[in-house]
Amino acid sequence: MREIKVGLLGLGTVGSGVLKMIQENGDKITNVTGQRITVKTALVRNPAKHEAVADSVTLTTDFAEILNDEEIDIAVELLGGLHPAEEYITALLKQHKHVVTANKDLIAAVGPRLAQLAHDNHCDLMYEASVAGGIPILRTIANSFSADQILEVKGIVNGTTNYILTQMAKQGLDYDTALKQAQELGFAEADPTNDVKGKDAAFKMVILSHFAFGTEVAVDELEIVGIDQLTKEDVAQASKLGYVVKLVGLAKVVNHGLFVEVAPTLVNQSHPLASINNENNAVMVTGQAVGDTLFYGPGAGGLPTANSVLSDITSTTKNLVLKTTGNSFNNFAQELGPADPKAVSFPYYLSLKMPDVPGQMQQLAGLMTQVGASFQQLVQTAAHQGHAHVVVITHAINQAQLAQLKELLDQSPTLSLQAAYKVLD
Amino acid sequence: MREIKVGLLGLGTVGSGVLKMIQENGDKITNVTGQRITVKTALVRNPAKHEAVADSVTLTTDFAEILNDEEIDIAVELLGGLHPAEEYITALLKQHKHVVTANKDLIAAVGPRLAQLAHDNHCDLMYEASVAGGIPILRTIANSFSADQILEVKGIVNGTTNYILTQMAKQGLDYDTALKQAQELGFAEADPTNDVKGKDAAFKMVILSHFAFGTEVAVDELEIVGIDQLTKEDVAQASKLGYVVKLVGLAKVVNHGLFVEVAPTLVNQSHPLASINNENNAVMVTGQAVGDTLFYGPGAGGLPTANSVLSDITSTTKNLVLKTTGNSFNNFAQELGPADPKAVSFPYYLSLKMPDVPGQMQQLAGLMTQVGASFQQLVQTAAHQGHAHVVVITHAINQAQLAQLKELLDQSPTLSLQAAYKVLD
Repeated sequence: MREIKVGLLGLGTVGSGVLKMIQENGDKITNVTGQRITVKTALVRNPAKHEAVADSVTLTTDFAEILNDEEIDIAVELLGGLHPAEEYITALLKQHKHVVTANKDLIAAVGPRLAQLAHDNHCDLMYEASVAGGIPILRTIANSFSADQILEVKGIVNGTTNYILTQMAKQGLDYDTALKQAQELGFAEADPTNDVKGKDAAFKMVILSHFAFGTEVAVDELEIVGIDQLTKEDVAQASKLGYVVKLVGLAKVVNHGLFVEVAPTLVNQSHPLASINNENNAVMVTGQAVGDTLFYGPGAGGLPTANSVLSDITSTTKNLVLKTTGNSFNNFAQELGPADPKAVSFPYYLSLKMPDVPGQMQQLAGLMTQVGASFQQLVQTAAHQGHAHVVVITHAINQAQLAQLKELLDQSPTLSLQAAYKVLD
Repeated sequence: MREIKVGLLGLGTVGSGVLKMIQENGDKITNVTGQRITVKTALVRNPAKHEAVADSVTLTTDFAEILNDEEIDIAVELLGGLHPAEEYITALLKQHKHVVTANKDLIAAVGPRLAQLAHDNHCDLMYEASVAGGIPILRTIANSFSADQILEVKGIVNGTTNYILTQMAKQGLDYDTALKQAQELGFAEADPTNDVKGKDAAFKMVILSHFAFGTEVAVDELEIVGIDQLTKEDVAQASKLGYVVKLVGLAKVVNHGLFVEVAPTLVNQSHPLASINNENNAVMVTGQAVGDTLFYGPGAGGLPTANSVLSDITSTTKNLVLKTTGNSFNNFAQELGPADPKAVSFPYYLSLKMPDVPGQMQQLAGLMTQVGASFQQLVQTAAHQGHAHVVVITHAINQAQLAQLKELLDQSPTLSLQAAYKVLD
């Protein structure tokens, strides 16, 4: 039995979880992989802070101690952010060390380049933990949909925003209050920008799209709308109409083009994604053959994320034993261009403000007709300070129609579009 | 590029699905695996019935044509039942052919023996499709929980009974009517015994337990209760109390002992399993580190099941290329004995009939006290023909207490226990 030695870059919540699982579940890991896995060294900023584990692990502040240690087979990058993570991983791969990372920002940005570098060096590079915390979604797509055509991948892939949205829906809180509460409870960071602006979810959709459709998409190419402009009035109105507002990442193939978006979305209360609450995540994969499947679990947290890291470590360990390292985590590659906006259709929820005087509704109906859109539901609420509030759910309209309607409303001297969210039934 | 040739034993719904997927998604399969996979031969009873595919596949009624064909790498057994499936698979493995099967009866009965035979012959034996149709649950447990301690696996793993139970709950049908409707719509077979008596679900729990806990359990050792004695009154009563009745397979480790059961279960309406309707399946895996995860999808159907078969074919293909065949589908092995009945506790729903005369409730309360059980909810409905109907939800009691209570009620001259179902909150 060989001993596989691991070096950890970072010993925060996830790193400590990885260490704990390797130490406590060593027997099972050996049972399954046939090898003993140990953590030899951990790169930390302040060794004094980690005295509790100093007996069992060498603590270092010097990256070179892991990079140049010939005994270390697998390095686990848990620093987050682009730098120095990219430089470290690059150096490790060139040194023929296998790398496991949970770094979604980095993988979304330069994943394919790093994967190529890993391949060239006969190394494994795995990153299950980069998407949806404890849900083993990447490995599942790679292994279990290899003969099916995936039509759509959508999901709730950011725990912070889902926690905020759940509190807005259940307690009727406004966004600022719900965010503050989430921060106090540790579900949102002091600077929540990446989460609430949808950027974190977008990173994950880039990685999911690469696995599901074999296509590299740049984060910049995505339509990303966060939840920070969502009002409690829209959340309440959605609820009255039978919907829950969720931050949904959605990627689908339409006529050989790929549509990827992250945006607040009205999800029908009977839809499986509607019942995913608090910090939980869920990813729904729709295959041509298999139909709808859903994978649900904790979207974050030290131990759930550590479990995904461990699944990569044990996979790499098996590959080491079988001498099959160096194969890509994701083997599917095809080049899809962006989807034709005219081919991508959804119903939309529109929230509008207009003066409470005759003729406004006729004007709205006229603009809708002009772009070929029609009403599915229409609610006018009580006027307030001379303004009426009108909420519309349209029949399905395509992205070109939506853009045209937005433009017409923008030009209207009296009608003001407050929000436009797509609707999943 | 090598061409991997497949022989199909059986060309029914799933077999035709496998053929269709290989033919239609060949490019993607080649993209992912680097190999071209083709179906060379199919074993059928009546070749005339399959003329539509006779151009592309050799149809035969003679098993030896597949067994002795040196070009065929992988045989896919889709005959179902124990014989001749067992003899065929045994012969194929001895002939060094890799085998993929969807045969839950066979794997539950002799899976470990066949796995050993496969290993001895350096062959792959995979059976993802044997559990929960299109849900890739076995591979997920094997690959993504290898470093976590699984505490519990439970789920809805039989589509037929879930369809019947959904109709009973939503339309208020009695069991016989719902069964007949399911048969007419093709969701239940003419002889539904294996499904409605819980046997099919039990086969799947045997296989799931083997993956989750590494322990071989015999179907005969399981407590199995079907849905055929379930009354519409109990379904309605459960609903009033906030529960849905589901046929739940549950396996959990308690004090190093394994408890496995298939039985109608009252599932709290807010529990994720409560919303799994019609022929869909879901498996919930609870890991010590990862917490609750849930995997949802179609539990049956030609194409979803075919997709699971294909995931085995592509995995085996990758192993062929990497020369890593012969490794067990499930690598986890530990020997757990049966759980101590005193250590396994659930709340129970008890449905009782008693004469509508004074003193009966006191008697019931007395028996409950005698075994150390207490009431959580109690409902007495209007008397009918001199008999009262009483429904109880107990606080958690262990299996020994439950058995003792059943015995005491059995001995009671007036109290009659109509049903006892465990409760998941």
